[in-house]
Amino acid sequence: MSKIAPLSGFPELLPAQRAVEREVIASVSRTFELHGFANIETRVVEPIERLAKGGEVDKEIYVLQRIAAEPDAKAELGLHFDLTVPFARYVLEHAGHLEFPFRRFQVQPAWRGERPQEGRYRQFTQADVDIVGRDELPFHHDVEVMAVMVDALGRLPIPRVSFQFNNRKLIQGFYRGLGIDDVTDAIRVIDKLDKLPADEVATMLVERVGATPEQAQRCLELATIRVEDTSFVERVRALGVSDELLDQGLEELAAVVEGCRAVAGDTVGVEANLRIARGLDYYTGTVVEIFMEGYERLKSVGGGGRYDALASDGRTTYPGVGVSFGVSRTLIPLISDGVLSGSRPVPSVVLVALNSEDDRAASTRVAAGLRARDIACEVAPTPAKFGKQIRFAERRGIPFVWFVQADGTSQVKDIRTGEQVEADPATWAPPEHDLRPTIVSTASTVSTSEENK
Amino acid sequence: MSKIAPLSGFPELLPAQRAVEREVIASVSRTFELHGFANIETRVVEPIERLAKGGEVDKEIYVLQRIAAEPDAKAELGLHFDLTVPFARYVLEHAGHLEFPFRRFQVQPAWRGERPQEGRYRQFTQADVDIVGRDELPFHHDVEVMAVMVDALGRLPIPRVSFQFNNRKLIQGFYRGLGIDDVTDAIRVIDKLDKLPADEVATMLVERVGATPEQAQRCLELATIRVEDTSFVERVRALGVSDELLDQGLEELAAVVEGCRAVAGDTVGVEANLRIARGLDYYTGTVVEIFMEGYERLKSVGGGGRYDALASDGRTTYPGVGVSFGVSRTLIPLISDGVLSGSRPVPSVVLVALNSEDDRAASTRVAAGLRARDIACEVAPTPAKFGKQIRFAERRGIPFVWFVQADGTSQVKDIRTGEQVEADPATWAPPEHDLRPTIVSTASTVSTSEENK
Repeated sequence: MSKIAPLSGFPELLPAQRAVEREVIASVSRTFELHGFANIETRVVEPIERLAKGGEVDKEIYVLQRIAAEPDAKAELGLHFDLTVPFARYVLEHAGHLEFPFRRFQVQPAWRGERPQEGRYRQFTQADVDIVGRDELPFHHDVEVMAVMVDALGRLPIPRVSFQFNNRKLIQGFYRGLGIDDVTDAIRVIDKLDKLPADEVATMLVERVGATPEQAQRCLELATIRVEDTSFVERVRALGVSDELLDQGLEELAAVVEGCRAVAGDTVGVEANLRIARGLDYYTGTVVEIFMEGYERLKSVGGGGRYDALASDGRTTYPGVGVSFGVSRTLIPLISDGVLSGSRPVPSVVLVALNSEDDRAASTRVAAGLRARDIACEVAPTPAKFGKQIRFAERRGIPFVWFVQADGTSQVKDIRTGEQVEADPATWAPPEHDLRPTIVSTASTVSTSEENK
Repeated sequence: MSKIAPLSGFPELLPAQRAVEREVIASVSRTFELHGFANIETRVVEPIERLAKGGEVDKEIYVLQRIAAEPDAKAELGLHFDLTVPFARYVLEHAGHLEFPFRRFQVQPAWRGERPQEGRYRQFTQADVDIVGRDELPFHHDVEVMAVMVDALGRLPIPRVSFQFNNRKLIQGFYRGLGIDDVTDAIRVIDKLDKLPADEVATMLVERVGATPEQAQRCLELATIRVEDTSFVERVRALGVSDELLDQGLEELAAVVEGCRAVAGDTVGVEANLRIARGLDYYTGTVVEIFMEGYERLKSVGGGGRYDALASDGRTTYPGVGVSFGVSRTLIPLISDGVLSGSRPVPSVVLVALNSEDDRAASTRVAAGLRARDIACEVAPTPAKFGKQIRFAERRGIPFVWFVQADGTSQVKDIRTGEQVEADPATWAPPEHDLRPTIVSTASTVSTSEENK
């Protein structure tokens, strides 16, 4: 038996840290539900041929094999590497039992065998929210689903996040209107602006994509437009390119930016950033990447967009629009940095002290009385001296210790202040903010989960 | 690409069914928290050598390999097949950061590559609750943790469950006091009483274990004792065997039965069933199997017990006591049989109707007002005729449709009764029982999740 050691890429949380993750998941889930999204869970395995369909991530898939399988048995199943592939398959498999447009959210782990680094894990939890239609899906759902995620992240006590939107129709229409033939390749080159200086990218556009220097210049000008309102429309118009698809993209992007700004509040930034392309394969309209202030090194903490063919069975096509939030990618660095922590590692708000082992029944009755009124508590494990029982509570962050007196009456002590008062398990209650473990956040946009309720 | 088809052994729930599972998980989790248990999640993979340690389940382990691994690379990781092995490893790995006794609950899937059948799946969710000590763990925690699960299952709207308790010290002490040398083998034979007639088991005890016919007879008599109170103590005494370990086992089992009866109510049975042995390997005291009325074919829907060495790192031993509830094993058959269903497949309680696409902003404002007051809702996807919008709500089980009038006032219609009233999004609220999807249960011990709150 090997020594116990952490497995690289498979982070685990201590109880108080897990309380933070649970609160965050509960909060975003509740927001999704308020907007009418139903929760589903998919099995964690898919046929390998379905997972490898995109071709881009096949190296990172974990394949599964029963340990007793024949040595030359072909592995047929793998762990999903995102929640989109299994959701698309779920829609196809269960279409006859779903009502469209189908609004769902899903919070589950996914697995990738990639090299672990900060914010990139081999097992990580995502929270995805999508709307999928049958045959068609009106554009207004793009605005809706993005606004839902803005609402959800705006309620979290994390550093300010910024939603950076673009639209594939806008980019494609612009390039087409400009006269560039290989739009896809041009987008791929522009995507390198993150890593290369602008003049090198311009040279690549000329040499690799066959653009004229003037076309290359305009592509760069488009990519540098980044504003917090709909003024990008005028600025793109000023570049003098006209194209129907471009018009549609401009209109859609303006609607998304306006719709999200309307719900964003102070803790969420909303921008049109015309450099965002978000891969090439399935997005066909709205695209978004989400960044977190001070954590730009994580790259995006979420993203998504519109795909006109989320799934298809040959006869019916299911267009969709959705966005994903990287729960592990966001929380694990914030927890490591001490930005987020749990107020205590246990749910108990009261420790019921024990006078002697013979008095356990009396203390258990008090605990049952508190629980009947939704107050989490536990009875001390041993009838140690009261000072020791108080330290037991202290080490766990339990704020109150309850003493059952010889005459059957009770007193409860707030061990933070030392204040001790008479109390009856049928009526006493702790302050609302002590009832459950909460998130303690040092993020500048701090709003504790309590305040969000 | 293969055709979409269900994967045998990997059941998936439709949204309304998933609502049932979520409510059940939320309910048991809340009960565990009320008793002071902290939630943790462990990574889903463990080193194969750790998983295969017991030796009993190795054939069922799913091993993991990166798809790009060298063909002869040795697989090192597998998916956990229960929540006990990863919990034991978590305790060892994080012991320095935990306070003992450590009370935790854990609700996660586990995987076994076994042949699927009703109640046995390749991916299944379990809910485990355990208390683990360092070096020692007083016996009263056995009573406590079992009573917690009694409390948790008693709050669920499922058919009556029965907790059948025994104690390994009782069995071992009895056999030892009787003069049987190979206690382990005798237990293994007695375990066959489920499948074989009593006289065959008696013969096996004589031929295989070397018991005298008289000893075999007494073993059978012990195994047939099954009572709902502590009268088993007298009945065992009447068999005339005396042994110190037996005395201790009798005392412990009586305390567990009494402690659980005290919290059981009408919907949970508590029995001493001296035939229960529950495997052989790590249980050292209390053992329990949980059965569900009318679903005896599933065998147990939960079980657990006391293990004096849940984990050990050579220097320190961590004794534990816990019990596991098979969430999938219980719910999937109940859902298939129509015993449990969700009241609706969506969280929305209100559909805000749409007069025309131009009026979407007005309907969206009403929706935002309702959400601000914690009322889940969605705006109609298209400005279809109202009859069609009402049918849209009907198909999703959304009970209320909200109409924004031309003058800005609103009316809301309960589409089940047809009643339509004036309403203001700042003050109107649906009846409490409509607020969220609930569990509809036809189980005879029915108590809806609402009533349990």
